[in-house]
Amino acid sequence: MAITNKDIAWLRVPAEEGAPAGVKELCDKAVEKLGFVPNVLRIYSLRPRHLELWNAFYDDLMRGDSGLTKVQREMLAVVVSTTNRCHYCMVSHSAYLRKLTGDPLFVEQLRTSYKYADLDPRDRAMLDFAVKLTEESSSCSEADVEALREAGWTDEDIMDIAQVVGMFNFTNRLASGLGWVPNEEFVTLGLDEGSST
Amino acid sequence: MAITNKDIAWLRVPAEEGAPAGVKELCDKAVEKLGFVPNVLRIYSLRPRHLELWNAFYDDLMRGDSGLTKVQREMLAVVVSTTNRCHYCMVSHSAYLRKLTGDPLFVEQLRTSYKYADLDPRDRAMLDFAVKLTEESSSCSEADVEALREAGWTDEDIMDIAQVVGMFNFTNRLASGLGWVPNEEFVTLGLDEGSST
Amino acid sequence: MAITNKDIAWLRVPAEEGAPAGVKELCDKAVEKLGFVPNVLRIYSLRPRHLELWNAFYDDLMRGDSGLTKVQREMLAVVVSTTNRCHYCMVSHSAYLRKLTGDPLFVEQLRTSYKYADLDPRDRAMLDFAVKLTEESSSCSEADVEALREAGWTDEDIMDIAQVVGMFNFTNRLASGLGWVPNEEFVTLGLDEGSST
Amino acid sequence: MAITNKDIAWLRVPAEEGAPAGVKELCDKAVEKLGFVPNVLRIYSLRPRHLELWNAFYDDLMRGDSGLTKVQREMLAVVVSTTNRCHYCMVSHSAYLRKLTGDPLFVEQLRTSYKYADLDPRDRAMLDFAVKLTEESSSCSEADVEALREAGWTDEDIMDIAQVVGMFNFTNRLASGLGWVPNEEFVTLGLDEGSST
Amino acid sequence: MAITNKDIAWLRVPAEEGAPAGVKELCDKAVEKLGFVPNVLRIYSLRPRHLELWNAFYDDLMRGDSGLTKVQREMLAVVVSTTNRCHYCMVSHSAYLRKLTGDPLFVEQLRTSYKYADLDPRDRAMLDFAVKLTEESSSCSEADVEALREAGWTDEDIMDIAQVVGMFNFTNRLASGLGWVPNEEFVTLGLDEGSST
Amino acid sequence: MAITNKDIAWLRVPAEEGAPAGVKELCDKAVEKLGFVPNVLRIYSLRPRHLELWNAFYDDLMRGDSGLTKVQREMLAVVVSTTNRCHYCMVSHSAYLRKLTGDPLFVEQLRTSYKYADLDPRDRAMLDFAVKLTEESSSCSEADVEALREAGWTDEDIMDIAQVVGMFNFTNRLASGLGWVPNEEFVTLGLDEGSST
Repeated sequence: MAITNKDIAWLRVPAEEGAPAGVKELCDKAVEKLGFVPNVLRIYSLRPRHLELWNAFYDDLMRGDSGLTKVQREMLAVVVSTTNRCHYCMVSHSAYLRKLTGDPLFVEQLRTSYKYADLDPRDRAMLDFAVKLTEESSSCSEADVEALREAGWTDEDIMDIAQVVGMFNFTNRLASGLGWVPNEEFVTLGLDEGSST
Repeated sequence: MAITNKDIAWLRVPAEEGAPAGVKELCDKAVEKLGFVPNVLRIYSLRPRHLELWNAFYDDLMRGDSGLTKVQREMLAVVVSTTNRCHYCMVSHSAYLRKLTGDPLFVEQLRTSYKYADLDPRDRAMLDFAVKLTEESSSCSEADVEALREAGWTDEDIMDIAQVVGMFNFTNRLASGLGWVPNEEFVTLGLDEGSST
Repeated sequence: MAITNKDIAWLRVPAEEGAPAGVKELCDKAVEKLGFVPNVLRIYSLRPRHLELWNAFYDDLMRGDSGLTKVQREMLAVVVSTTNRCHYCMVSHSAYLRKLTGDPLFVEQLRTSYKYADLDPRDRAMLDFAVKLTEESSSCSEADVEALREAGWTDEDIMDIAQVVGMFNFTNRLASGLGWVPNEEFVTLGLDEGSST
Repeated sequence: MAITNKDIAWLRVPAEEGAPAGVKELCDKAVEKLGFVPNVLRIYSLRPRHLELWNAFYDDLMRGDSGLTKVQREMLAVVVSTTNRCHYCMVSHSAYLRKLTGDPLFVEQLRTSYKYADLDPRDRAMLDFAVKLTEESSSCSEADVEALREAGWTDEDIMDIAQVVGMFNFTNRLASGLGWVPNEEFVTLGLDEGSST
Repeated sequence: MAITNKDIAWLRVPAEEGAPAGVKELCDKAVEKLGFVPNVLRIYSLRPRHLELWNAFYDDLMRGDSGLTKVQREMLAVVVSTTNRCHYCMVSHSAYLRKLTGDPLFVEQLRTSYKYADLDPRDRAMLDFAVKLTEESSSCSEADVEALREAGWTDEDIMDIAQVVGMFNFTNRLASGLGWVPNEEFVTLGLDEGSST
Repeated sequence: MAITNKDIAWLRVPAEEGAPAGVKELCDKAVEKLGFVPNVLRIYSLRPRHLELWNAFYDDLMRGDSGLTKVQREMLAVVVSTTNRCHYCMVSHSAYLRKLTGDPLFVEQLRTSYKYADLDPRDRAMLDFAVKLTEESSSCSEADVEALREAGWTDEDIMDIAQVVGMFNFTNRLASGLGWVPNEEFVTLGLDEGSST
């Protein structure tokens, strides 16, 4: 497999043509949806079996059945990635959240300080927990879980919140540790359009 | 599904009998291997589909084909969990690593400070990267990746190291954020036996 | 003076009509240049004499004669404000830097991690110093100043770098401590145009 | 302009004789008041126009009309500089505050921990805000501003508190980043005299 | 005095045979009690007079008359050493606490997170104070002392709690700063026996 | 024993008259030397036996035979206490060091930033180690010990440095955790005299 475009990560990036069928399918779906292949797929295909297994879990967690809306899950993605100052994930998930909400100002608030966003108490409780769990997980306590319940979240929802927070603590480390560069297309994606799925 | 044993997490833990077939299978395998069902399976079965998809990825990452030995992957588990001060993961993965190595002193060193362990430079470079990526991912740079290459790791290996570090940054947040309690069996597991796989 | 629009700060914001002549002049200039009055002027006019004196200094520092270009001074504004996670200043100075450079991708890199930007060594040394001086000023040493000289900066330039870094450590505290809200116009400013002064 | 006394900063310090009229006037006033030229004036005159503009703002903020007394503004100077561990500003503003209050014990308490000082609740609230705004500005919230109001401060006062805190976050960075050395005269200034203005 | 076993510290370790009578007596007592000489005695005998004076104080503080039980004092030892991540003290005092309590699970909880231990409110208040005093002593306040009184501790008890916390902040620095290696015997000590004194 | 002067600590302070002979002797010696009884003796006499044992160790460590001069040991006291921001110990040991050196400017430098003091490389290496050991003991390594050796310290000296650093990490926690107030006499002690022992 030829060594290709070093400019998108600090590790060797495999050529697209040699990718296994499963990876190619993921890339094709992405093109259909976004118009381009996000660099995460090109970079992660260095370990194609891991990519497929990770993506199966990721996709179900972020877009499958849950008490959290897709917007709420992307809000967590942006806030966790901002807390960890992860370049790839801040840029790409800001774009996804703009696309989902059609609201660039809201995304700008989440990616600097959600304190300035107009959030209902349930979403605010969710994001408070996300930041604490990201920054100082060992100091979380049963009172933090209880605060989520009081804000209206079920135990299944709380499990999903923790999983999404955990997931971006996973991806932020891949991206920041291995120097992933976001596609330039993400920078303006969702800046000029209304809300969609 | 009945609410059961609250003493093993801050969230409701589903009764084992009602678990879907896929989850039951995971539990049976664990009993065969360890003699008991690790609480992670009982707790995570609140979201059975997520458990199955997460476990498929986790299992391949930790025990599937890789340039890292199983011992090296468990070393990462212990060191990342120690860095994050995660009770469940420190106790359970210390046990797994004792079982794999038959060396309680070595595990004791890794779970306080691997500086005191007798490591070759390759393993030491791996653990240095793991701590930096866990504690301050946004300050990682290409030089850190280069240091791993110089220690003898391939790009595929480095990808696996980053994934395992990311994985325990995921599980540590689930366990510490949701109050997971390790099975008491873990405390002495591997203290009286020789090395095995 | 009537109490007005509380939505742009946590302190009372004076009505524009009652503002002294010096403040009105600043507002008029801003409208001419940007098309709107940045909220900083409306909020700061609670202390009109301070606003005029601060602005005289700020304006000369950021746009007056210096060995640093205006772009370099705005780069410092964005990087210091990102380090301090200041909502008002990140949003407004990202806009100013986009307007100056016509390069939204470059601004996106600076406001998450300038490590990913294509910088010459002189600019990189300047930003490294800015982050250290912002985060841990008491650990700066003569070696840090020497590193700037080696990168090609004169002593006058270094004085200006330190002053601009200091200035945004001033404004970030005003904005974050008093809840300043950036004008919505900043969010998209400079996303669709070429470079200008 | 000749290069002079390198022992008072890490940057070249201009000779006094060559200084512009505005700077000379500042120096003369200082000698009249203190008996010597504080090194800040000699060092800052590397950029004489900046010095004059900065000083015009600084002087009005620290000594002009305000709901804060001069003592309260110097208390902020000492506490912010202590928080930032700034050598020049701790030494010089401890001296100014001793001179203003004639109370060396009080100054000693402020420059290690104002917790031990006998403060009224209004001053204590002011200093609590100063430390939070200095150490973690991005976590300040409307509740912090409300606490100041409840302690009896007006919105104009709160604006001045934030400005003085911001000002010393500016000067602390100049002094610590550029290695400013305080005049030896400051060490004992105000240790043997009563209160004055 | 011959230079001996470098593997137990980063400093030269004196030969046992040349030790003064006072040190020999300490070693003999330890052998009687534990079956071996803890490395602390061998290492500290580089400064035999200091060892004797320190040990006289340490022994009275940890085992002399006090409102705290020996178990409570060892709980403080484990929790302070865990907070400071001190290898020697975590390993050795985990062993002492297992020996005293016969409860390896309890020790495992204290040495990762005492949040998971089944503690009465008095012990929990003691450990909360220990962690705060270890991590951020300068932010302790009279309210922290009052909380201990409310939990049932007398002023003499609180003095002893602070002294034991202080003591392990002393020993942790000796051990971590000078590379003390715990005896391998500590690793399994107390894992297979019931409670004793 | 009557409850007395609450203004010097957050714990009850025993009356001097009821103190045991050993404590009285310590107080008498202090009066002879300083002209007053330092509050540490009055406060610590709540546990008179501990005071005598601690003091025996402290006195030998700080004033007994050592490769470190008394000035060097007091330099460590000031720098460790400054690092920990301990009010009692900064004020009292600044006074002791002024008395020993007759150099108030030097003490002022040590108690804000020893970077500005004119130190030989041996003293600077000692203080660098002191700060690292105080702030982040678990990251100390054999290289730090080696740096002390290279600066000219013997292994016995290094043991004493570590002990003195440890000692002030002990006393700083007593003083900051229990609200010890320094005697007002310390504030000006040593400001008007030459060097002595």
